Amino acid sequence: MSETRTLASYIVKGRYEDIPDDVRHEAARSLVNFMGVALGGSVDPAVDIAIRALAPFSGKPTAAVLGRVERLDPLHASLMNGISSHVDDFDDTTPQNYIHPTSPVASALFAYASANRVTGRAFLNAFVLGFEAESRVSNAVYPAHYDVGWHITGTAGTFGAAAAIGKLRGLSEQQMVWSLGLAATQAAGLREMFGSMGKAFHPGRAAQNGYAAAILAETGFTAGERGIEGPRGFAAVQSAKYDLSKVTAGLGVDFNLRRNTYKPFPCGIVNHPTIEGAIELHRKHGLKAADIAAVRLRVAPLVLDLCNQQGITKGLQGKFSVYHGAAVGLVRGQAGLDEYTDTAVNDPAVKRVRERATATGDPALTEDQARIEVELADGQRHSWFVEQSLGNIHRPLTDRQLEEKFRSCAARVLPASAANDVLDRCWRIAELENVGALVDATVPAVQRA
Amino acid sequence: MSETRTLASYIVKGRYEDIPDDVRHEAARSLVNFMGVALGGSVDPAVDIAIRALAPFSGKPTAAVLGRVERLDPLHASLMNGISSHVDDFDDTTPQNYIHPTSPVASALFAYASANRVTGRAFLNAFVLGFEAESRVSNAVYPAHYDVGWHITGTAGTFGAAAAIGKLRGLSEQQMVWSLGLAATQAAGLREMFGSMGKAFHPGRAAQNGYAAAILAETGFTAGERGIEGPRGFAAVQSAKYDLSKVTAGLGVDFNLRRNTYKPFPCGIVNHPTIEGAIELHRKHGLKAADIAAVRLRVAPLVLDLCNQQGITKGLQGKFSVYHGAAVGLVRGQAGLDEYTDTAVNDPAVKRVRERATATGDPALTEDQARIEVELADGQRHSWFVEQSLGNIHRPLTDRQLEEKFRSCAARVLPASAANDVLDRCWRIAELENVGALVDATVPAVQRA
Repeated sequence: MSETRTLASYIVKGRYEDIPDDVRHEAARSLVNFMGVALGGSVDPAVDIAIRALAPFSGKPTAAVLGRVERLDPLHASLMNGISSHVDDFDDTTPQNYIHPTSPVASALFAYASANRVTGRAFLNAFVLGFEAESRVSNAVYPAHYDVGWHITGTAGTFGAAAAIGKLRGLSEQQMVWSLGLAATQAAGLREMFGSMGKAFHPGRAAQNGYAAAILAETGFTAGERGIEGPRGFAAVQSAKYDLSKVTAGLGVDFNLRRNTYKPFPCGIVNHPTIEGAIELHRKHGLKAADIAAVRLRVAPLVLDLCNQQGITKGLQGKFSVYHGAAVGLVRGQAGLDEYTDTAVNDPAVKRVRERATATGDPALTEDQARIEVELADGQRHSWFVEQSLGNIHRPLTDRQLEEKFRSCAARVLPASAANDVLDRCWRIAELENVGALVDATVPAVQRA
Repeated sequence: MSETRTLASYIVKGRYEDIPDDVRHEAARSLVNFMGVALGGSVDPAVDIAIRALAPFSGKPTAAVLGRVERLDPLHASLMNGISSHVDDFDDTTPQNYIHPTSPVASALFAYASANRVTGRAFLNAFVLGFEAESRVSNAVYPAHYDVGWHITGTAGTFGAAAAIGKLRGLSEQQMVWSLGLAATQAAGLREMFGSMGKAFHPGRAAQNGYAAAILAETGFTAGERGIEGPRGFAAVQSAKYDLSKVTAGLGVDFNLRRNTYKPFPCGIVNHPTIEGAIELHRKHGLKAADIAAVRLRVAPLVLDLCNQQGITKGLQGKFSVYHGAAVGLVRGQAGLDEYTDTAVNDPAVKRVRERATATGDPALTEDQARIEVELADGQRHSWFVEQSLGNIHRPLTDRQLEEKFRSCAARVLPASAANDVLDRCWRIAELENVGALVDATVPAVQRA
């Protein structure tokens, strides 16, 4: 049997009852993380612009957009949810294939659930299966596919959305084969877009196109039946090297959700140990910007390749400046979305400390490690070493830390009580009678009134 | 200056007055051919299914779909026009890059013009510029891009639609750079879909996605600014070899429209010389199926690789059977859309002759040549040699032959008088005050009433 058909058959048959408890919990963690990040990103200009551009083409507004007052048809809502949840570069990552896996799948699923009655169990099952589909396609083509320049979240993500929506629609195996084929033939997204709004467009389009693939397949629109493995299919055309066995090996036993990770800080991941050390020093010593005479960083050499920006003025540049990360950690004791705005980058206290920071590459350090030393005006020195960066797969964010992240992001659009309500529903998603009510709860009440 | 920006600048500045007369006429020929083929394809089940699946998601129905009574938002109308105009494999081809160039561009433009007032001159100018954009991108990556398995009509076509709609929207150079970037990052379509409805989906999606790219860019949605030539851009990621100089060489002087060709028969192009010879024998000798004892074909060896199907029962198979082509030519004296239906393939007279046909590969023949010999029951033999296939670039269809093709296709949805009206408006497109009226004229009056 072909890989496409084997995967389709698994998705069609997969039951909530077959998902192990730890995977169910990791799915809930992924959705908590996704929802926070989507709410935080929902106020980004990229979302404003996309809605302004495309709302005139929207169908009946049966779906809420996460965190927004505008309602759109579910395909357009999928697109907007995808942009919101990726625009801050704060969503999840599976390090073995560099996909940001939740955005393409959950963006489509929440749009669907907003317009159609879906129980939490059906939702979670579809999410796990969609996550599995895109992860397996990713595993098969990584790293050659990513290295050549594909944004794997945009390409493989389309399979995830097609699988998840197809599952909720109850597709037959044959229809699911077509749905995956129509996903394959829409799999797009170039890394050349990084640094522009085009990057966040990718998981949005993946969600929207995967959703459409499922609906077309359900209605009888046919596709090539070997979309993944055929000689002119996704793997052969879009990856110089690939291993198709990874599409099917361990299906139903080896769940990719177990390898998901969540960022504590909305910036280049190699800055994370430095930021963590800076926050630690802030907490221990109650540092004040005016007292800091020098900041000395010792980091893996790659950090200086990727995140060596000084003399910056924009929030987006801050995401690629290890000096900025150190400065906000030391001065503010935190590095959330508010630390990566233009305002934060130009905050005089932050700027003062950033300009006193220097960094040395040390080949003895891994990218999960950093040493930070602060010298005060009175000559005192404090230092801290981070051996294993928070949020990596060996030191995952705890549920409580995910909740802190959620609240800090959601605060951009929701009052605390409303944010807590959304958070509670995300944790309890498997018990919900109607996931649409959760989506409604993300719409800012002030604007709604 | 980068290739993307140079191309964007050309599109933004390009004026109708700058288009040479012969190119204007070839543009009209391309649109006549497109319109006929789109009307002929508009009754295909692929279009029925796509409309049934996606109409529930359509925005305000401000655009007519060519040849259909349903109205959709212009993005969805673009998709449907693209499916209609490619589903019969009867649309145009530029042999130097194998793109079917008119469908992605004209499908979007007619949808736009149906919903917005556009003069014929503005329409034709945008069409020529969009055609040029997609052709130049195609030229730069062909053949490596096509050979690996990309359906170049789906990929490069997205640039054409983004350029053409962007032109009508009056984008600035910067916006056009983004529009082309957003096209690059949506460029998709796998040859693995050939033989399924997924193939015709490609120019439709290219039209729809290119249209959306232009609208997003106009509204300020940013993209990578080196979408074509960047290290992670379209050419580098989607083609093992490419020549970027072809994007810009001879801009404004060398028009790709001059190299467009139109199929006389809706089937694999290598069958065309055989069919033409068969029609010639039918005309000269008034052959009857019952009198034919044997048909002997001598063809280029490639024909037997691609179109060697016997024992067929489906219209789609007929497109890849040189025997079927010979049979319909001999028996019916024509090979239009009606000769490639399931009914035609199972027509006893056609079947009888097809089963008496044999073919020999002859390396001395080019793919534009064929020899056909018919032996009658009474022992008489007639033969014909086609030296240069009708419709290829050296022996293009005349305007009159394009009109015959148009009428034969349009007859599927329009009475002769209405078809002639549409045809007349297509020829006079540069004089039209409002192209939307031409689109309206394609809607079947009987159903409209």
